[in-house]
Amino acid sequence: MEFVRPVLPSASRAEEIGDGNLNLIFRVFGEDDLSVIVKQALPYLRIVGESWPLTLERARIEADALALQDRLAPGLVPRLFGYDPDRKAIVMEDLRSFEVWRAALNAERTYPRAAADVGRFCGQMFMRTSNLLGDPDDWKALLARSVNPELCAITEDLVFSAPYIDVPSNDVEEHLTEEAAALRRDGELLQAVAALRHQFRTRAEALIHGDLHTGSVMVSPAGTRMIDPEFAFMGPMGFDSGAVLGNLAIAFIAHRAQGHRQFATTTARDARTFWDTLAETISGLWPDDEPWRDRFMAGLLTDSAHYAGAKMIRRIVGLAHVSDITGIADADVRRQAQVAVLRGGRALVCAPEVADIGGLWKLAVGAP
Amino acid sequence: MEFVRPVLPSASRAEEIGDGNLNLIFRVFGEDDLSVIVKQALPYLRIVGESWPLTLERARIEADALALQDRLAPGLVPRLFGYDPDRKAIVMEDLRSFEVWRAALNAERTYPRAAADVGRFCGQMFMRTSNLLGDPDDWKALLARSVNPELCAITEDLVFSAPYIDVPSNDVEEHLTEEAAALRRDGELLQAVAALRHQFRTRAEALIHGDLHTGSVMVSPAGTRMIDPEFAFMGPMGFDSGAVLGNLAIAFIAHRAQGHRQFATTTARDARTFWDTLAETISGLWPDDEPWRDRFMAGLLTDSAHYAGAKMIRRIVGLAHVSDITGIADADVRRQAQVAVLRGGRALVCAPEVADIGGLWKLAVGAP
Repeated sequence: MEFVRPVLPSASRAEEIGDGNLNLIFRVFGEDDLSVIVKQALPYLRIVGESWPLTLERARIEADALALQDRLAPGLVPRLFGYDPDRKAIVMEDLRSFEVWRAALNAERTYPRAAADVGRFCGQMFMRTSNLLGDPDDWKALLARSVNPELCAITEDLVFSAPYIDVPSNDVEEHLTEEAAALRRDGELLQAVAALRHQFRTRAEALIHGDLHTGSVMVSPAGTRMIDPEFAFMGPMGFDSGAVLGNLAIAFIAHRAQGHRQFATTTARDARTFWDTLAETISGLWPDDEPWRDRFMAGLLTDSAHYAGAKMIRRIVGLAHVSDITGIADADVRRQAQVAVLRGGRALVCAPEVADIGGLWKLAVGAP
Repeated sequence: MEFVRPVLPSASRAEEIGDGNLNLIFRVFGEDDLSVIVKQALPYLRIVGESWPLTLERARIEADALALQDRLAPGLVPRLFGYDPDRKAIVMEDLRSFEVWRAALNAERTYPRAAADVGRFCGQMFMRTSNLLGDPDDWKALLARSVNPELCAITEDLVFSAPYIDVPSNDVEEHLTEEAAALRRDGELLQAVAALRHQFRTRAEALIHGDLHTGSVMVSPAGTRMIDPEFAFMGPMGFDSGAVLGNLAIAFIAHRAQGHRQFATTTARDARTFWDTLAETISGLWPDDEPWRDRFMAGLLTDSAHYAGAKMIRRIVGLAHVSDITGIADADVRRQAQVAVLRGGRALVCAPEVADIGGLWKLAVGAP
C-alpha cells in the first residue's frame, strides 16, 4: 500500500469491501479514522470467471474519465487522489457516509438531492465533453484517446445482443420462459434493438459514463457521487440518461407491484426532476451559435427512451439482474413486475419518437 | 525524385500538373512513356493563401486512407505505390487516360460505367469500414487513427457554417445578394444545417472519402477511380453519397437551364444508377445477424438528402464554386440555375425524411 501514502501518510490497514464484477475494492485506513478507497482492476469478469479475460487498459480509461469528471462536474464524482499505472489502482475519496441509490430506493429512503444531482452531472458532462463547446481539436483527441473496445463489447453483448438470443449466459426465471421466447420472435423489436446497437457503437456525442444505473450512484443527504466510469467512451448521450430513466422506471414498477404507491410516486417524481434538471443544465451551457437546442433536446429524449427500454429488458432476461426485482420475494408479484418491465421496455425501444418526459414515462410504466 | 525510383527505376523528368487547393501534383516520367503521380502536401490552403496554414499530418491520413481503399475497393482508386513520410509525398498510379467526371459531365461526354462504379466504391467502403463487419477492436483502432481534425474543420466551415453567415470568404455573385441574405434569415434551414453539422462531427459510421464530388472522380471508358481522400475520417456515410447526388443534381440543373434536355436526363439516370448500385452493394455485404437493413437504407437515403442539400447550397453561396455553374456564360441562365440549386438544396436539407431515390431527386431538381 505504499502508493497510497502520498495521499494518506499513515495508511496502515486495508479491508476488501467490493463485490463488483470487474475490480477489487479496498478501504485503506489511516489516522483519525481517515480513509480512502483503492480500486484495482481485475484481469477477468468476475461474474463469469476467468473464462472472460479482460485487459487492464480499462483502469487507465477509468482514471482518465474520473479525472475529467472531477474537473468538469466537481463534487459529483469521488475526488480522484491518484492513479498507479503499474498496479492499475485508482486511489479516491471514500464515500463512507453514502449509500447506493438503488439500495435506498429499494428501502424507500428518500434523498431529495439525488435526482437533480444526477441530472446536473449528465448535463455538465454531456455538454462539456461534446463537440458543441470547447476546442474541436481537443475533442477529436479525446475521442481518439477514449475508445474503449473491451468494455463497449461487454455492453453491446449484455444490453443489445444476448437478451435477444437464446444463450446460456442469460438468466431467465422459469416463469418468464414464454415472455423471453416472445421477445426473440418479435421482429419489430429485434430490428429496433439492432439499429440501436449500431447507434450505440457509432454516435460519438460525448464522453458518457456508460453504466449509469442506480447502482452507480452514491447518495447522501449532503451530496451525490457517480462512481465506476470504467465503461466511459465517446458515445451517445441518451445511453446515460436512458440508463437513469430505465432504472427509475424499474424501481417504480417494483414498488407499484408491491403496493408501495406512495414511494412509487416519489420515484416518478425523481424521473421528472432528473430530466428537468438535465434539460436546464444543457440550456444553461448551450452555445448561442447553435440554433437547434429544441431539436437537440427532442432527439436526446427519444434516444433516452430507446436506451431506457433496452436497459429495462436486459435486467429481466439478460445476465445481470437488479435487486429492485430480485428482492421481491413473492413470485407472483415478482412476475407481475417483470412482465411490466418487459412491456415498458419494448414500448420504449419501439417508440418512433417521444414528445416529452411525461410521454416517455407513460410508455415505460404503462397504465397506473 | 530518388524516392520514386523504387517504383519507376528510370525516373528522369517531372512536370507539375496540379491545380489543387491543398497539394502539389507532379507527373514523373520514366522509360517507355511510363509515368507515376507524386502528390505532395502543401503547408497551407492554396485558395486562401499562407494565411490558412495546414499541418502535414494529413498526408499520412491520405496515404492511410488510399491504402485502405486500394485494399477494400480495388480498382476503384489509383494504385498506391508508396508514401514518403519525410517528404509527405504519395506515389501513385498515373491516370493519364482518364478525365475528371465533372469535366466530362460539363462537356456532355457519357461514361456508362462511372455512376455504377462510384456506387460500388461507396458501398464497399461504407460496409467494409463500418462497425457492421469485421473485428470490433480493429474498427475502434481505425476510428482512433483516422481522426482528421484539420480537414474536418475545413469542411465544417466551408459546407456547414460560412454559407449561412455573412463572411468575406463567401463568393456570392451580385445577382444572388438577395437569395444569399434570405438563406441567412431562414430559421428552419439554419436549425437543420446546425443539426446536420453536429451529425457530421459525431456520427462515426465508416471511413468516408469526405470530399466525393464529381471533381474527385476520374472516369474513362475502361474504369473509374476516386481520388484525393485527404478529407477521409470516420464519419457519416450519407456525407459521401450525398456529395455524389448533390453534385449530379447541380449538373442536371445546369444542363436543364441551358436547354440540354437529353444530357440532363442522362445525369438523372446516373443518380439513380449510383443509388441502386450502392444499395445492391450494401445488400450483398449486409450481415445476416443485423435484421434492420431496410431501416438502415432508409436512414442512409435521408442522410444523403440532407448532405446533398448542404453541398448544393455551398457551391452557390460559399467559397468554392463548380464549373457546371460558373461555366454558364449567360448571366440570366446562370442565375436561373443558381436559384434552382439553392431551392433544391434547401428542400433537401429541410426534408424530414425521403421515401426513395425518386423522391430525393424530385426535391433536388424541383419541377422538370
